[in-house]
Amino acid sequence: MTDHPYFISCDWGTSNFRLRVVEAATLDVLAQRATGQGIQRMNEQFLSGDRSDRYRHFAAYLREQVDLLPEARPTFPIVVSGMASANIGMQELPYGKLPIGRQARNLVSEVREFRSGQALVLVSGVHSETGIMRGEETQALGLLDELDPQAEGVLLLPGTHSKHLRYRQGRFTDFQSYMTGELFEFLTSRSILANSVRDGVWNTRTQSAFLSAVQTGCREGATAHLFAIRAGHVLRDTDPVDNYYRLSGLLIGAELHDVAVEVEQPLWLAASGSLRILYRAALQELCGADHLVVLDDQLIERALLRGQCQILATHG
Amino acid sequence: MTDHPYFISCDWGTSNFRLRVVEAATLDVLAQRATGQGIQRMNEQFLSGDRSDRYRHFAAYLREQVDLLPEARPTFPIVVSGMASANIGMQELPYGKLPIGRQARNLVSEVREFRSGQALVLVSGVHSETGIMRGEETQALGLLDELDPQAEGVLLLPGTHSKHLRYRQGRFTDFQSYMTGELFEFLTSRSILANSVRDGVWNTRTQSAFLSAVQTGCREGATAHLFAIRAGHVLRDTDPVDNYYRLSGLLIGAELHDVAVEVEQPLWLAASGSLRILYRAALQELCGADHLVVLDDQLIERALLRGQCQILATHG
Repeated sequence: MTDHPYFISCDWGTSNFRLRVVEAATLDVLAQRATGQGIQRMNEQFLSGDRSDRYRHFAAYLREQVDLLPEARPTFPIVVSGMASANIGMQELPYGKLPIGRQARNLVSEVREFRSGQALVLVSGVHSETGIMRGEETQALGLLDELDPQAEGVLLLPGTHSKHLRYRQGRFTDFQSYMTGELFEFLTSRSILANSVRDGVWNTRTQSAFLSAVQTGCREGATAHLFAIRAGHVLRDTDPVDNYYRLSGLLIGAELHDVAVEVEQPLWLAASGSLRILYRAALQELCGADHLVVLDDQLIERALLRGQCQILATHG
Repeated sequence: MTDHPYFISCDWGTSNFRLRVVEAATLDVLAQRATGQGIQRMNEQFLSGDRSDRYRHFAAYLREQVDLLPEARPTFPIVVSGMASANIGMQELPYGKLPIGRQARNLVSEVREFRSGQALVLVSGVHSETGIMRGEETQALGLLDELDPQAEGVLLLPGTHSKHLRYRQGRFTDFQSYMTGELFEFLTSRSILANSVRDGVWNTRTQSAFLSAVQTGCREGATAHLFAIRAGHVLRDTDPVDNYYRLSGLLIGAELHDVAVEVEQPLWLAASGSLRILYRAALQELCGADHLVVLDDQLIERALLRGQCQILATHG
């Protein structure tokens, strides 16, 4: 896959920093480190410091962390994806354009000599007409092998800003972004609805509240039905846990409106934990189970590493 | 209208407190006081104090403020509407039921002797199947005389939690609530979109951005299009002021979805300032101007007083 039997994976997000030493052939992780030193904090420190060299400021931290990583050798190339290529990151790179396939040729990257004999491959994100992403494109690349090369469908990556990637014959051709997770976080914790919802277990009752709301959100959108959650709580003492799932269902249903019409096309779902449960249930409700493929948890866990490995092979 | 030539209007909201001495026949305001001592702060003080008598705690503050009010006489009845009748207020009253007409008989009220010879009329809110309100019902009552008694239509009260009151032959029969204002506040100030929007002037360009978004929001809902505002800003450097109106248009368009189909029925708009401009433009775009009635600013300003005056006549 790449000339390098090992590489160092750096996933540098807005709030988190994660390093892993990876065996390329197996994607086994030999060692790892994670810190809360995300791009945002790094940027604040840079802006309050001497501001002379952005790359140097970020590279110094990366070097310090790489040196603390067991199993890392000074010849292993480092692949950095996520927000490190944003304007508040290590070095700004323009967004790449779709389509991207297995070789990821359209991805924009910058290769630098990190230390003598050690390369650093900084990966940019991609954009569509209405969306931008930095990080998810690398994860999506790592899932490409799991998608039927003859098919046309949509890969779903739920999260704070959910992404729906349109796939056709081995390539991602377009995508949409949704603020579902961020809206849910705001509505459950800081809005007028906060007192009417409470996180709780997924059971037949909460599932029923969820699925009914998924239908409503998909058919009529979410915003017109939000306040009814509070009214139900105040007037009829509806259970806050049911309301939590009702709210989730409204937002997820609205997000899935566009894919709900594509019942004849495969939908690949890449999510873990509770998001996996919710999105699977919602997609089965809206589209049936026939064309839904829920990707394996271990595949999803390794998707970023696999994507970085492919980027290293093409761009390294 | 009422036996009392004068009354004291108390508008006690979550965050604000307002007193006015009103001449009943003309609704002229002879004197007024306003403070930031809303229900929420009053409640916190009550909970951290001796907690023995909720009514007494609120009444003490009201008495102090009434005594500071010029022109107030100890015989003028006091009408209190807004959040004072909520569970965190002066005394909890159950929500009244629709329909409500000019006499407001279905409104729930509590009359107490505030001081010897001085009555206090505490007014509760009303509920529908999916909405609750405390305060707007009094304002809506005060606008009833402006609505064609033979007509069937909708009275729109835009705001943090917009209300759409269904009207038929002199009575409000149902209503819906929308979180439009609260969502807009969150999205413009604390979400991922905050850096992509900026408040600015209403002109032909921002109006065009707004109206186009109104159409999209009404047709397809708001949530699927929110992230595109950020993408447009990052990728095409769209103007943050245009984006501000775009975001506003999406949310208002989604709110107006249900009334947009009622093009043959009158729609009465009660809004001031920038909300008046935006909702009028959106309603004209979606429904045409033929059935839209934009209520006079002075009427809206006096609506609460007129409503309280009517409540005093029936309940006092």
